[in-house]
Amino acid sequence: MKLGRVVGTVVSTINAPDFDGRTLLLCDLLDPSGDAAGGYLIAVDTVGAGPGETVLILDEGTSARQVLDAPGAPIRTLVVGIVDAVTIAEPTGRAAAT
Amino acid sequence: MKLGRVVGTVVSTINAPDFDGRTLLLCDLLDPSGDAAGGYLIAVDTVGAGPGETVLILDEGTSARQVLDAPGAPIRTLVVGIVDAVTIAEPTGRAAAT
Amino acid sequence: MKLGRVVGTVVSTINAPDFDGRTLLLCDLLDPSGDAAGGYLIAVDTVGAGPGETVLILDEGTSARQVLDAPGAPIRTLVVGIVDAVTIAEPTGRAAAT
Amino acid sequence: MKLGRVVGTVVSTINAPDFDGRTLLLCDLLDPSGDAAGGYLIAVDTVGAGPGETVLILDEGTSARQVLDAPGAPIRTLVVGIVDAVTIAEPTGRAAAT
Amino acid sequence: MKLGRVVGTVVSTINAPDFDGRTLLLCDLLDPSGDAAGGYLIAVDTVGAGPGETVLILDEGTSARQVLDAPGAPIRTLVVGIVDAVTIAEPTGRAAAT
Repeated sequence: MKLGRVVGTVVSTINAPDFDGRTLLLCDLLDPSGDAAGGYLIAVDTVGAGPGETVLILDEGTSARQVLDAPGAPIRTLVVGIVDAVTIAEPTGRAAAT
Repeated sequence: MKLGRVVGTVVSTINAPDFDGRTLLLCDLLDPSGDAAGGYLIAVDTVGAGPGETVLILDEGTSARQVLDAPGAPIRTLVVGIVDAVTIAEPTGRAAAT
Repeated sequence: MKLGRVVGTVVSTINAPDFDGRTLLLCDLLDPSGDAAGGYLIAVDTVGAGPGETVLILDEGTSARQVLDAPGAPIRTLVVGIVDAVTIAEPTGRAAAT
Repeated sequence: MKLGRVVGTVVSTINAPDFDGRTLLLCDLLDPSGDAAGGYLIAVDTVGAGPGETVLILDEGTSARQVLDAPGAPIRTLVVGIVDAVTIAEPTGRAAAT
Repeated sequence: MKLGRVVGTVVSTINAPDFDGRTLLLCDLLDPSGDAAGGYLIAVDTVGAGPGETVLILDEGTSARQVLDAPGAPIRTLVVGIVDAVTIAEPTGRAAAT
């Protein structure tokens, strides 16, 4: 998964009923510190995310269809969660032990 | 999904009946503001898109086969919609609250 | 799909019968104008493409297996067509209307 | 697979039960020498990895579901192992023979 | 498929029996001339490749599982062949005809 920020919406008629009533969110990809990392994805909303919110983006078709409980949906990319916190931790693990 | 702009067509004989009668569109990838982002994709048209139009490109085989209702088609990339509007919103969400 | 140009062949013994008798083509990726775009793919030939030819490359396993009619083949990338023409069109569509 | 280093965690409510109780690890991608290679992934932990540890990241949905023994889980990226050693070997093989 | 050069091995305990007894090869990605192209992959060995050897890397899960004859293995990337020769050919095809 990737971190993104909702920056807008895309309006387009798509000839596939699974898109009816779904919002297409335009999401900038972020680096872990919350800055734009370059690049974007258009993702189907599943959580009611709005502009400015930091979100988790899942970009695999089989996973997307599971979350939507729609086995035949032609959808690959979803906003699956609103991010509550990103914690950058102090290293304490084995690789840092000397 | 990604935003693209139709810039041309590709003519090639492909030894797979699912391509018969389908147009292969050459699409530049766009950034959200509508500028070329670098890179391109060759996508099968499903909406009658023409040169200069901004389109939604879906790039996953399973999804492409669902949209075409062709379970066995060897097609991964489709133009699935003509984009009516891309709206860049003012942030109002939780991540922007302070 | 992507545009490529056949620039050579790769000889390697692969321990999977689906590769027996198949030619592995070394293909430079091209931009739409026919210049090398950077990067390459090694693709299984299905059309008898030769050095210098511009080809269509399909890079998805499920699609590749459909074209080959070989459901179990461990093959992801195919040359599926020799490109007859790439046409860059004058924009006439809605997005260009003002 | 790719090498990564755990640098933090992500907290987000995801409306899919397969994520319940699972830790989302923020992992910087590494080059073989252990330096940050640019880029990151958010991966579901399966090994109890902690901050600072070098890990193996598996980034394919079907594989992820196999490791979790959860055929329907909407999960694509896993931390599947803690790396004990990366050995850069002296070339002794055929390609180096002259 | 891609060309790579075996540069080392990775040792990690992975909690999935399909990895038992398999060697994880650290492979630099190569350009067609045999120079490092930047980037690397960690691939499961299937051919007994050793350091310094130029190899063919197959990076698709379904294909990997077919080559291994292990339908449920959580493995995406394999070394499937040792490269005997890469031939850069003189163009003789239609695209070069004038």
